[in-house]
Amino acid sequence: MGQQLKLAVRTLLRGSGQVMFQCSAWTGLFFLLGIFWGSYECHLPQVAWGAVVGLVFSTLAGFLLKQNVADGDQGLWGFNGILVGCAFPTFLANTWLMWISLALFAMFTTWVRQGFNNVMAPWKVNSLTFPFVFMTWIFLLCSRIFEAIDPVGMSHPVAVDVAATAFGVDTGFGHLVIYWLKGVSQVFLINSWVTGIFFLVGLALCNKWAAFWAAAASAISLALALLFKATPTDVANGLFGFSPVLTGIAVGMTFYSVHYKTAIWAVLAIVATFFMQAAMDVFFEPWGMPTLTGPFCVTTWLFLLPLYKFTVADPDHSHWHSAKAK
Amino acid sequence: MGQQLKLAVRTLLRGSGQVMFQCSAWTGLFFLLGIFWGSYECHLPQVAWGAVVGLVFSTLAGFLLKQNVADGDQGLWGFNGILVGCAFPTFLANTWLMWISLALFAMFTTWVRQGFNNVMAPWKVNSLTFPFVFMTWIFLLCSRIFEAIDPVGMSHPVAVDVAATAFGVDTGFGHLVIYWLKGVSQVFLINSWVTGIFFLVGLALCNKWAAFWAAAASAISLALALLFKATPTDVANGLFGFSPVLTGIAVGMTFYSVHYKTAIWAVLAIVATFFMQAAMDVFFEPWGMPTLTGPFCVTTWLFLLPLYKFTVADPDHSHWHSAKAK
Amino acid sequence: MGQQLKLAVRTLLRGSGQVMFQCSAWTGLFFLLGIFWGSYECHLPQVAWGAVVGLVFSTLAGFLLKQNVADGDQGLWGFNGILVGCAFPTFLANTWLMWISLALFAMFTTWVRQGFNNVMAPWKVNSLTFPFVFMTWIFLLCSRIFEAIDPVGMSHPVAVDVAATAFGVDTGFGHLVIYWLKGVSQVFLINSWVTGIFFLVGLALCNKWAAFWAAAASAISLALALLFKATPTDVANGLFGFSPVLTGIAVGMTFYSVHYKTAIWAVLAIVATFFMQAAMDVFFEPWGMPTLTGPFCVTTWLFLLPLYKFTVADPDHSHWHSAKAK
Repeated sequence: MGQQLKLAVRTLLRGSGQVMFQCSAWTGLFFLLGIFWGSYECHLPQVAWGAVVGLVFSTLAGFLLKQNVADGDQGLWGFNGILVGCAFPTFLANTWLMWISLALFAMFTTWVRQGFNNVMAPWKVNSLTFPFVFMTWIFLLCSRIFEAIDPVGMSHPVAVDVAATAFGVDTGFGHLVIYWLKGVSQVFLINSWVTGIFFLVGLALCNKWAAFWAAAASAISLALALLFKATPTDVANGLFGFSPVLTGIAVGMTFYSVHYKTAIWAVLAIVATFFMQAAMDVFFEPWGMPTLTGPFCVTTWLFLLPLYKFTVADPDHSHWHSAKAK
Repeated sequence: MGQQLKLAVRTLLRGSGQVMFQCSAWTGLFFLLGIFWGSYECHLPQVAWGAVVGLVFSTLAGFLLKQNVADGDQGLWGFNGILVGCAFPTFLANTWLMWISLALFAMFTTWVRQGFNNVMAPWKVNSLTFPFVFMTWIFLLCSRIFEAIDPVGMSHPVAVDVAATAFGVDTGFGHLVIYWLKGVSQVFLINSWVTGIFFLVGLALCNKWAAFWAAAASAISLALALLFKATPTDVANGLFGFSPVLTGIAVGMTFYSVHYKTAIWAVLAIVATFFMQAAMDVFFEPWGMPTLTGPFCVTTWLFLLPLYKFTVADPDHSHWHSAKAK
Repeated sequence: MGQQLKLAVRTLLRGSGQVMFQCSAWTGLFFLLGIFWGSYECHLPQVAWGAVVGLVFSTLAGFLLKQNVADGDQGLWGFNGILVGCAFPTFLANTWLMWISLALFAMFTTWVRQGFNNVMAPWKVNSLTFPFVFMTWIFLLCSRIFEAIDPVGMSHPVAVDVAATAFGVDTGFGHLVIYWLKGVSQVFLINSWVTGIFFLVGLALCNKWAAFWAAAASAISLALALLFKATPTDVANGLFGFSPVLTGIAVGMTFYSVHYKTAIWAVLAIVATFFMQAAMDVFFEPWGMPTLTGPFCVTTWLFLLPLYKFTVADPDHSHWHSAKAK
């Protein structure tokens, strides 16, 4: 037990050291000491504690996903997470929603790293700290349109409209059902709840699980949009739903066979797609461009690239279509 | 005949169903019904008809390029095209030029998908709906500087100058020749028609086909710039010509041996480069940056990545230079 | 000797010809004549001389790095460099610092091309003129915040704050030491010189070379920031230092074994990271976003992808961590 605790602490401290490529617990300890000193000196203690939280959750993600333990032992699951933990409290207001997001995004970096490394392996390069960079960019962009997340530490944007629009959508049950159905109809850029019913029925005709994941994804993303207080008009028009709908069908029953483990993975992918949608909405604001289904594509790639096998069968992603041919 | 028609309809309806990964004609039919219902309900009937046109032309492109018929049979040539067909009339004014562009870009998605899938195959991921997303982004960006294409359905850009500048360039024959020659000289960032002659002569010294494609590409892109009413000063300074000139030489006689089939391919590549140029001009406006020869690079990659073999000889793109060594 | 000179001239002229894919000295000669005619006609003689300088330095880089001589002989080391040479004097004021940067970036394109070609080889496509495009974009973005580099030839940016802020930072020795140490502490987003000492000590505990490269990188980037007159507040807060620090450790002693040749390579990588940092700062201004350690990731990839072997041992980049496991 004591031995296990010792190993756990070493793994975490090495995660700190690996930010600068040093697989050494002592180096990591000094880095943490420096972080605590500096964050308290700058009157931002939450940065130091964020570092600890990010380090723990990203390392935990590696164990949960049963990734190569040798990597984890060397602290390679923690160095992106500790940076997420330093960045979130540096740029964002200290709220409970920020802390939940911090833990979630710290975990994201662990499997995003696995995917990026798979992509880069043929050229013998490594994703370095890019998983931290990429996922943090996503959430910082989100903060521009989430009324519940305040980018207090970020500089003023030159080309993003930050005029405070008080969050307000009618959350009566009838309205929520309409937003939910429009989230499905927007897959084809149609803004009609009736069309949403046509689409769900059409899906059910072919595969009930497809209809289930489409419905679930639109509901989950709607709930998240209300929780983070995203752009009201977009919420009402189902614009936070269509990309998650596609991700849900893709990850929940197309590229992975239906299973309780893949269901958890699909829910995480749906959640990630919601954030990707908000981030890309902000990214395209300078040009007044729509994201189209870009958020679905990018997020689905992020969740397929780690090539995790949750079930016995290995889904050969490159032939999803023939596998489903009727 | 009746059998062939039945197969064609099934292929098209499956293309509709594949947007949500369902290889089922019935699912596709319900999706189309939903699209028609919603588009008429929203008083945008052109969206529904656009969907049909996009579906037909993108599927047609697959047959014309003799791609793997099993894919087409499953509707995998149509799902990007139907989305292009929904998007164009949603964001752009209903003009004949919009419809021609819709059909062309729907066809683009079919071979762009082939290229993207080739790129992603090593990691067992698929391009999903990204061919639709990418090509539609390109044209929607173009709409910001094409006076002939009106982005009525797009939100106001924060960092793109949309001050209406009435299109006006002197189209006397003498002037057109100067714009055409400057299109060639701008390859080296030189704004001089005399330099354009030096370049054409220099090309002819080595290979008459190189000179031909340079001249043809500059002329084609100039004609398109006048047709779509692109930024007048840029047209006059040959800034829509230099990237197509390089694409023309690359696709017309460098990476593919001269042949009537590759000639058609080269013309399509030149046309695509013109749109890519306009799109990147808009993309870089927030930073006031020049695109340099970026549009040529991106478009040429898009036309080489499908690895089509139009002639007997297989052009090994990775050794274009040695193949032409003198 | 005369023979060697003849070969050198042919190589250079072919470099000019290869911009349009022609491996012919005569074609290249006509291109150069056209460039000289046009640049003098436009009263920008520096463009023509820039072309010559860029051509010579990029070709020189190929020889210094002992790249495949057959490529160089065909002018494939020169065509990106000559374009850099045309672009810099076209868009930037004619100062000695611009000329030094021109020569340096022309050389960059030669190994960046090697890396890009390695990346694209699996799909049989070539980087074309993208090394020129990419590296020139980087420096032109830098020019927006370098008071010492004036973008006289660039159009007005819509979303970049170009309000002239006179460069001014206290350059007393004590202050420079603080900026230098903060450059190290900012790796973890901490703005404290004391934390910088913690980090350097932590590095030295594990590997003295890691501490050396971290210290050297922060110093080099600080010197460059003062030379190019970069954003004063960022210089004072060490924001130009943290990415080079990581690049220095990565290239100087992690992915390559310590050696005088790799030391030269590491210094070049540190310099490149400094420019990448400035460029990404400008790129993210429209969204008011921080670059995080993105500049380090991108630049380190650029310096690893050519897969140069400076020492006997071949560093298998994909296993840097296990190689350093303690």
